Amino acid sequence: MSWPYKDLLGTRELSKEEILLILHTAESFKEISRRDIKKVPTLRGKTIITAFYEPSTRTRVSFEIAAKRLSADTISISGTTSSAVKGETLKDTGKNLESMRPDVIVIRHSMPGAPHILAKALASSIINGGDGAHEHPTQALLDLFTIREKKGGLDGLKVAIVGDIAHSRVARSNIFAMKKFDMDVTCCGPPTMIPPFLEDLGVNVEYKLDKALADKDVIMMLRIQKERGGVSVIPSVKEYAMLYSLKEEHLQKANNGVIIMHPGPMNRGIEISDAVADGPYSVILDQVENGVAVRMAILFLLLGGES
Amino acid sequence: MSWPYKDLLGTRELSKEEILLILHTAESFKEISRRDIKKVPTLRGKTIITAFYEPSTRTRVSFEIAAKRLSADTISISGTTSSAVKGETLKDTGKNLESMRPDVIVIRHSMPGAPHILAKALASSIINGGDGAHEHPTQALLDLFTIREKKGGLDGLKVAIVGDIAHSRVARSNIFAMKKFDMDVTCCGPPTMIPPFLEDLGVNVEYKLDKALADKDVIMMLRIQKERGGVSVIPSVKEYAMLYSLKEEHLQKANNGVIIMHPGPMNRGIEISDAVADGPYSVILDQVENGVAVRMAILFLLLGGES
Amino acid sequence: MSWPYKDLLGTRELSKEEILLILHTAESFKEISRRDIKKVPTLRGKTIITAFYEPSTRTRVSFEIAAKRLSADTISISGTTSSAVKGETLKDTGKNLESMRPDVIVIRHSMPGAPHILAKALASSIINGGDGAHEHPTQALLDLFTIREKKGGLDGLKVAIVGDIAHSRVARSNIFAMKKFDMDVTCCGPPTMIPPFLEDLGVNVEYKLDKALADKDVIMMLRIQKERGGVSVIPSVKEYAMLYSLKEEHLQKANNGVIIMHPGPMNRGIEISDAVADGPYSVILDQVENGVAVRMAILFLLLGGES
Repeated sequence: MSWPYKDLLGTRELSKEEILLILHTAESFKEISRRDIKKVPTLRGKTIITAFYEPSTRTRVSFEIAAKRLSADTISISGTTSSAVKGETLKDTGKNLESMRPDVIVIRHSMPGAPHILAKALASSIINGGDGAHEHPTQALLDLFTIREKKGGLDGLKVAIVGDIAHSRVARSNIFAMKKFDMDVTCCGPPTMIPPFLEDLGVNVEYKLDKALADKDVIMMLRIQKERGGVSVIPSVKEYAMLYSLKEEHLQKANNGVIIMHPGPMNRGIEISDAVADGPYSVILDQVENGVAVRMAILFLLLGGES
Repeated sequence: MSWPYKDLLGTRELSKEEILLILHTAESFKEISRRDIKKVPTLRGKTIITAFYEPSTRTRVSFEIAAKRLSADTISISGTTSSAVKGETLKDTGKNLESMRPDVIVIRHSMPGAPHILAKALASSIINGGDGAHEHPTQALLDLFTIREKKGGLDGLKVAIVGDIAHSRVARSNIFAMKKFDMDVTCCGPPTMIPPFLEDLGVNVEYKLDKALADKDVIMMLRIQKERGGVSVIPSVKEYAMLYSLKEEHLQKANNGVIIMHPGPMNRGIEISDAVADGPYSVILDQVENGVAVRMAILFLLLGGES
Repeated sequence: MSWPYKDLLGTRELSKEEILLILHTAESFKEISRRDIKKVPTLRGKTIITAFYEPSTRTRVSFEIAAKRLSADTISISGTTSSAVKGETLKDTGKNLESMRPDVIVIRHSMPGAPHILAKALASSIINGGDGAHEHPTQALLDLFTIREKKGGLDGLKVAIVGDIAHSRVARSNIFAMKKFDMDVTCCGPPTMIPPFLEDLGVNVEYKLDKALADKDVIMMLRIQKERGGVSVIPSVKEYAMLYSLKEEHLQKANNGVIIMHPGPMNRGIEISDAVADGPYSVILDQVENGVAVRMAILFLLLGGES
């Protein structure tokens, strides 16, 4: 089976089969990063541009490592050194990059829809590396990969997503993806962090942490998105931590074998306690490791690879 | 034929034959970027340092892609993270870099003559990636490559260069190069953007856009160099746009088959209209594509390659 | 002989034999950078992350070139674009990076002990690329390599280290290393730049430059560490230069064949005169060249290579 699209812009428009294609492909790539020689020639002679117009370590590094382990060449552009300062439009920047014949452009941008503008304007494959509070599909796909790896499957699992849902592209991309697998998703946070569109997505809303966690197989904690105004909608970070920080005692409410996820970076003591972050149920670092495999799979599939 | 110099610092000192050597060599490199596997082993084991002390996307990325497609290793230095902040002189920075045995150093610097200082001090090959308002030879060479590709030749063509000539290294490098081919060059812009040295270079000056475009084969539009004070020499950007923005109606004055060029980044609605930038005469994106080929040729020739 | 540790954090804890192992290994790597094709496949498929949270050109570039010439993949993280801005702890950043399975992480950080925190927390090999005013072991090792190369050995040599000792990690790492070879080390500078711990390290202190230089085989000049408060402890830079700038006339006091070192970047006219910096006794650029070889050796040894 091969990938039917030019781009990867979001999870909303993906089918269950397309998501499974990525997860399945990622499985075979995961062990490459555990080898002594972590490199295969699959994408030799391909050019991957990462254009990150918002600060990022994890995602950019993950994409670069994924590309390099497939032997692709990578070129990195960041916001502060870009020609954005010279008044060029995003579309023109994209058209210019495309003229240098990259195979894939990974873009992170504070403006929702930025990757979609590029995807429409360009023949190159575009990967959405996070666009404002809109989507972050590769994060959701690595999350699903991790859940499937740990729980043996996805269908019908019960998930709580806790925190700053309103400002979180990670939550949105996960919700879109999880609903394809009939997962039972409950979002939890203070009312000002719960966006109105959740009900339309078939998501439960619960304002009390204890109740939200009851009978869950997966708990996904989110940080407050300070850079997108998250702090301004709560009375205080201290109060937030008191009400919504995940502590060990909470885990008794959840199902046996519950897994704790976090897309990082974590703010310890605010949304998650040390005991939980470093505890036996945490799969937070598995998420990061799986991110490389999932991004290798996505690069591979977008460039015409078949699973 | 091989390249007779250690460096590429400007077009002023190049002969017609030397320019043609680069253009001819670039032709054979252009198709590499259109291959499925865009990589040849030509410069394997060579080290190219790009040291950009002014913001740049296009030129830096173009050089990096050019180097990587020839299998060279690239190391990127940018102004903000450099040891320039620690009070080191440019010459010492260069000497230090050279001690690590790079093969080529590409430098962009706000100070005119910075690449020449390095070229004199170092045994490494230096490429001028733009020095203040002085020269930007690789831009001029890719422009000539594009003109030659589109018009079938260079000799005797009629060219208008419109905009902030006084602050433009692109204009200078193009004028030097074009005059070697007896091209008829007319510069156009408000009087405060027309530098006094143009007449010595055998360039015509015309303050009215309509007149400047008459009977031209090539029109090259420039943006206002805000970062070098371009805005301070005109009454307002709006008035500038009214007088010097290239619109579709202007093209009737030009010759049949006129081509429209712009070194980028474009400020749409200021120096160029959407209809022209995206219209059938625009070769702006060809310029960018050809930039990679021309820079591959320059790296190849500077490192001893023969055409 | 192979390297007995996971990391390279400082010279303090190294034995004479371990230092010699690195120097000996570096010898065989030095000529690679002088070849026409400067690349060997030794570390193909390895991933080296350079995480520099303080400005650096020289050291980061040196590590990247060292890694690339051994065919390793390099990923570069710098302070300003990192997720440090999102409130993540250093240990979590490290754990996250490690989950992407790098082989080596090189870290420079303003906080003394930062590399040690990572080394304890992670299974990856950590190299200290400079931690506050604490240690900079690869600089000391390349200094020793250079001294040994020029003087034919290390044992018992007489060294003067002049300048801002109190704020200098270079001085500390050198002192630790030099004392393993029973070198006679004299530190010289204004009293406010001489830290109290020197006597415990068996180092002589001398406040007058003339006296400090007498009968020395090696003179190492340091710059004032402005970014760590060096300027605030002296009356004026001008007075400092008058008392502690190394000039040609000073060299008569030193031994025949004295060598002049400086870790760079130099502030000419402050701690060193042009005549000395560029004179026949200066080995400052040798230090830089040897830095690549020493870092190649360190990467090679940390990744299991045997000398």
